[in-house]
Amino acid sequence: MIATWRMAHDGVVAASQKLAANGSAGDAVEQAIQAVEDYPFYKSVGYGGLPNAEGILEMDAAYMDGDTFKIGAVAGITDTKNPISVARKLSNDKFNSFRVGSGATKYAMLEGFERCNMLTARAKKIWENRVAEVAKHNLNPYDGHDTVGVVGLDQSGSMVTGTSSSGLFMKRPGRVGDSPLSGSGFYVDSEIGGAAATGLGEDLMKGCLSYEIVRLMGEGLSPQAACDQAVYRFHDKLTARYGKAGAFSLIAMDKDGNWGVATNVEFTFSVVNDREPAAIYLAHPGENQTTKIEPITQEWLDAYEKRIKAPID
Amino acid sequence: MIATWRMAHDGVVAASQKLAANGSAGDAVEQAIQAVEDYPFYKSVGYGGLPNAEGILEMDAAYMDGDTFKIGAVAGITDTKNPISVARKLSNDKFNSFRVGSGATKYAMLEGFERCNMLTARAKKIWENRVAEVAKHNLNPYDGHDTVGVVGLDQSGSMVTGTSSSGLFMKRPGRVGDSPLSGSGFYVDSEIGGAAATGLGEDLMKGCLSYEIVRLMGEGLSPQAACDQAVYRFHDKLTARYGKAGAFSLIAMDKDGNWGVATNVEFTFSVVNDREPAAIYLAHPGENQTTKIEPITQEWLDAYEKRIKAPID
Repeated sequence: MIATWRMAHDGVVAASQKLAANGSAGDAVEQAIQAVEDYPFYKSVGYGGLPNAEGILEMDAAYMDGDTFKIGAVAGITDTKNPISVARKLSNDKFNSFRVGSGATKYAMLEGFERCNMLTARAKKIWENRVAEVAKHNLNPYDGHDTVGVVGLDQSGSMVTGTSSSGLFMKRPGRVGDSPLSGSGFYVDSEIGGAAATGLGEDLMKGCLSYEIVRLMGEGLSPQAACDQAVYRFHDKLTARYGKAGAFSLIAMDKDGNWGVATNVEFTFSVVNDREPAAIYLAHPGENQTTKIEPITQEWLDAYEKRIKAPID
Repeated sequence: MIATWRMAHDGVVAASQKLAANGSAGDAVEQAIQAVEDYPFYKSVGYGGLPNAEGILEMDAAYMDGDTFKIGAVAGITDTKNPISVARKLSNDKFNSFRVGSGATKYAMLEGFERCNMLTARAKKIWENRVAEVAKHNLNPYDGHDTVGVVGLDQSGSMVTGTSSSGLFMKRPGRVGDSPLSGSGFYVDSEIGGAAATGLGEDLMKGCLSYEIVRLMGEGLSPQAACDQAVYRFHDKLTARYGKAGAFSLIAMDKDGNWGVATNVEFTFSVVNDREPAAIYLAHPGENQTTKIEPITQEWLDAYEKRIKAPID
């Protein structure tokens, strides 16, 4: 299993124990993402996530089964405790499996998913401060867009990919990023491997990088080579043609549990397979379209812990 | 310029005259799609489109610029005369360029786009009849999902792709198909070519076929070979892995104006380039993963005209 950002690690550790005990990739991916959705100090996913410009937390999530290509997705869903679980349930439907806005929330309510005001007092305070700051300094309001994306492989060889995000902090109502979009935010084929993305959704959907990475693995590239080739070529292409590339980071795992990542910023991720214990790594863009990957330091982790729990004035 | 379905033809003829007079691909694609959105007898796009299960017309549209990869998209937008124009305007934004649900409608209102009750008396009658029929015979309610997708190339070599759809008739509220999804419903790169899709969105997003077709053209395949390879391989793969493939049809044009289509059903399309006058063709899946394409007959056109305007009891 591989997942985006340090925030995914605790869920990855717990879910990987279930995989080791012959659990299914679907259950493991859902559980790992739920853990991030439920933790109040992660500001970009689920409960405690930062809201849109109007103070409303609108969330995006997707679930894809690599055996059958079944996809379920929601975008702009509100008041729902675990968007990933709604997406997973939708993946069983032949029609209407991608739902947005009030229709997505209505589906979750009718199907009995837990209703929850997802805006914590802390997130509300951060939002109020940001609104004041943006007004005072005439700033670009948009900041922060860390999706949790997970690729899981189980002992039967089945693979699943899932994503969940509250999207860009201070986004306009109804804004959707790449997380619920097949090929951009995620893709998986159990006969090849899976990939998922985090970063500026508006730019990620210009490149369909998750699909491209899976395709390249299908041509025989290692997950690392596939990530490097897809991500850095697209970064250069977008910079040349659009003028600038937003931040983006991709993770991938193949059907044998080999993994890779590529990023154009500083990026943490969590990974475990049957040869390596669960661990957090730090990635940076390296030289010549490669990725520099090193183990996370305790110092980094301590600073992170302090930062996410710092008092909000 | 190439476009999905017979319904696109009149708009293609008018827009291609502008292209011949050195008009831009963006203006031509927008104009061709607006013509379909505005015509009340086309039941799957814009005004006169068939509504969702609750009787509300929710629409999806997207616009992509092949020079810069700029994308604008809306999903589940209501009460808006020309969704394609909203999508085009959104493509100029670096953030918040894909908007869904009430947030999309709010954007359109704030930006001054024309507000319109999109449900015609005829569409309402068809919906009422269908609701009664479904209840009486316990039917699968879903029927009809013909997106207008257009790929345009102008004299400066710029390419644009656009889509617009009212989605699956009788869809659940908030359901979104492939039309606004990059890589699935559309993709374009002016240095290679563009593609667009129509069909069952839930299945199209499992394959990212528009991206794949553009990619294959980038590897040197002709538009026809790229369409054939992407569409028929994916049809077979989905049939094997998911059990069944919904209807889908893809169109493509390369940077030199060469075109191709592939489909797993009966499919009409309209195409024009600087060597061939605007014409409607009929396509079917042929033998050995090829596509059979023939000119439309007057008999077919007469029957179509009669069918779309037939009295509704």
